[in-house]
Amino acid sequence: MTINNRIARLGDGYVFAEVARRVKKYRAQNKNAVLISLGIGDVTLPLAPCITEAMGRAVDEMGNADTFRGYAPTHGYGFMTDAVRSRYAALGIGLNEGTIFIGDGAKSDCADIFRLFSSHDVLIPCPSYPAYADIATVAGRTVHILPTSHENGYLPSTDGVKRREYIIFLCSPHNPTGVCYTKEVWREWITFAQETGSVIIADTAYSAYVSGDGVRSVYELDGARRCAVEICSMSKSAGFTGCRLGWTVIPDEIASGGIRANTAWERCRAADYNGVAYIIQRGAEAALSPRGIAETSAQVEYYMTNAALMRNILLKAGIVPCGGIDAPYLWLRCPAGYTSWDTFDRLLDRGVIVTPGCGFGGEGFIRLTAFGRRADSLTAVGIIADEYGKVGRKL
Amino acid sequence: MTINNRIARLGDGYVFAEVARRVKKYRAQNKNAVLISLGIGDVTLPLAPCITEAMGRAVDEMGNADTFRGYAPTHGYGFMTDAVRSRYAALGIGLNEGTIFIGDGAKSDCADIFRLFSSHDVLIPCPSYPAYADIATVAGRTVHILPTSHENGYLPSTDGVKRREYIIFLCSPHNPTGVCYTKEVWREWITFAQETGSVIIADTAYSAYVSGDGVRSVYELDGARRCAVEICSMSKSAGFTGCRLGWTVIPDEIASGGIRANTAWERCRAADYNGVAYIIQRGAEAALSPRGIAETSAQVEYYMTNAALMRNILLKAGIVPCGGIDAPYLWLRCPAGYTSWDTFDRLLDRGVIVTPGCGFGGEGFIRLTAFGRRADSLTAVGIIADEYGKVGRKL
Repeated sequence: MTINNRIARLGDGYVFAEVARRVKKYRAQNKNAVLISLGIGDVTLPLAPCITEAMGRAVDEMGNADTFRGYAPTHGYGFMTDAVRSRYAALGIGLNEGTIFIGDGAKSDCADIFRLFSSHDVLIPCPSYPAYADIATVAGRTVHILPTSHENGYLPSTDGVKRREYIIFLCSPHNPTGVCYTKEVWREWITFAQETGSVIIADTAYSAYVSGDGVRSVYELDGARRCAVEICSMSKSAGFTGCRLGWTVIPDEIASGGIRANTAWERCRAADYNGVAYIIQRGAEAALSPRGIAETSAQVEYYMTNAALMRNILLKAGIVPCGGIDAPYLWLRCPAGYTSWDTFDRLLDRGVIVTPGCGFGGEGFIRLTAFGRRADSLTAVGIIADEYGKVGRKL
Repeated sequence: MTINNRIARLGDGYVFAEVARRVKKYRAQNKNAVLISLGIGDVTLPLAPCITEAMGRAVDEMGNADTFRGYAPTHGYGFMTDAVRSRYAALGIGLNEGTIFIGDGAKSDCADIFRLFSSHDVLIPCPSYPAYADIATVAGRTVHILPTSHENGYLPSTDGVKRREYIIFLCSPHNPTGVCYTKEVWREWITFAQETGSVIIADTAYSAYVSGDGVRSVYELDGARRCAVEICSMSKSAGFTGCRLGWTVIPDEIASGGIRANTAWERCRAADYNGVAYIIQRGAEAALSPRGIAETSAQVEYYMTNAALMRNILLKAGIVPCGGIDAPYLWLRCPAGYTSWDTFDRLLDRGVIVTPGCGFGGEGFIRLTAFGRRADSLTAVGIIADEYGKVGRKL
């Protein structure tokens, strides 16, 4: 057999796996060390009561012959796609039936979408969630990196980008920098996509964290329905990282060669996928109900209060982070002369786990998440501020 | 954007979707009709008590901060891969750690495996589960059909097959014919795969239905570890069609170009997948426990008693079906001069839903499943026997 040799090109390891390996080694060598993780972007609050109640009822239904459910419909259950449509309606966005596909999360959906779009060139801002470039590479596409910088606030610009057809990955609020793209940024990319025949894959997994009148869905922008597929997830909005549910929106207007993209995707999904567990869909439906929105919003608020407090500690120590206002991520420049892994290792020695920015293409930075328990998170950020201070004094 | 034009080549629709459309139309025109489905291969018995108990406990854990679980490990939870290893150990097969990947079902895993193996040519027996050819086509591979016939008992032979490197899909017990491949058939294909550098994708989703000393896993055969990946599912063994859990086994011996396939797959999965819900994994673990095996075996026995009784009714009416002994499927030749859809429509008019064999590449046949409730299933088979008799008398 021939193993896809592009997988070998992905490099040492996915950053989170490498972090896990180093942490494991550290723990083995320091049996009594107490570690606080501001690393992997995993939530810590339990599922909200309305979600577990709905899941419990669904488990009971599955144990009863009269209410048992087998294979789910290709798009997901009607109650679930309706719940997603209501969520968009609350943003003033009307979505037709047949445009929503329930899946097991944004990562799977981002990978699978390469079956639908065969455009060869893929455009990905740097830094970015590493999975985009990895899956594009595995799919045999050519990845073009779109550099962004601390100086321009990590807002990707079309200036100087070669005009050709791309699959463009845009994530806002942005992982790892925590930046929320402005309407101007989205408009620039929608225009670019329309002019070049590109498709935008808008990853809005963190939209529940947007404050004020920031953009929560790409479809708030005119023209997006003609060029943008939106992939969203309940991992961070409702604590579903261990439950697995997300969705992909493919508007009716997206078409090429006389084929409507959502019709093609429905056909493809019938052959390559069997959907999300009924129990999980019922939990997600509950999370999108008025009670669910109240309960999960309180969790989002908890994390964002963490972020604000963490930000304040850093600012007081003279460290100006990116993010933490519309996203549960804070993005920090490493002390001068330190690489991402240097900083990671140094902080690990003080009992704090962070994510090295180089894992996202952001060498010289680290990412902190606000998903931890409050007291731990503030302790950890205090240690970071102290360590940055020490390093500064040494220099 | 460019939509993958291979999707358009898949033809009208996945057979089950077309069946659903015709049934819907019939129901609309016959409001009071009572239909019995021997069609789609979906289970009807509810989840066994030990499974719902375990899932209920897991839901509670997810609602508690101290026991909440976020992202699962790439391979699946250790308790789940251990449960799968125990299941293989009971068959006398030892599997190393790191060789099992928990996924959301055989269909997803069969589709995703094209990311791991880049061999261009795909060999698929005909008739077959239609998803194999569909996903291979979407992945841009060349599909080679391996004809089998009623006369040779649907056992695929390597005779006359051009010797080159393939990805070979073999499913046993076989969907749709219900045939269980003999050791001789497996040996022939293992030898062929080793000699041609091919990989076998062994779909053993129906292995729980094998009677006597039939082959339950490809790894019962010598040499399989060097050339076969096994994909299995709990859909039919434990009623998980609406819960979604399966696994892929990639033995350490499978390698090419100095790369071990399971190492490459682990790297790929870290980028393209986030695993199966904790709640579902706990349910699956329970299903593979001694109590779970007892409870789910009773369900399998119920379905297989259905199959035996259905088979007897047909035999008494002079209709000799394939299958129904080691699989919950019965495969019948249509009355002379009738196509699969002719027979489907005629039986639908009598209130019985079957699956047209042409959907599997078996024109002139229909597939019945034994997953229905007993009384209904026997009534439906009685109607089929009666209808076949009428058609016979007319001819």
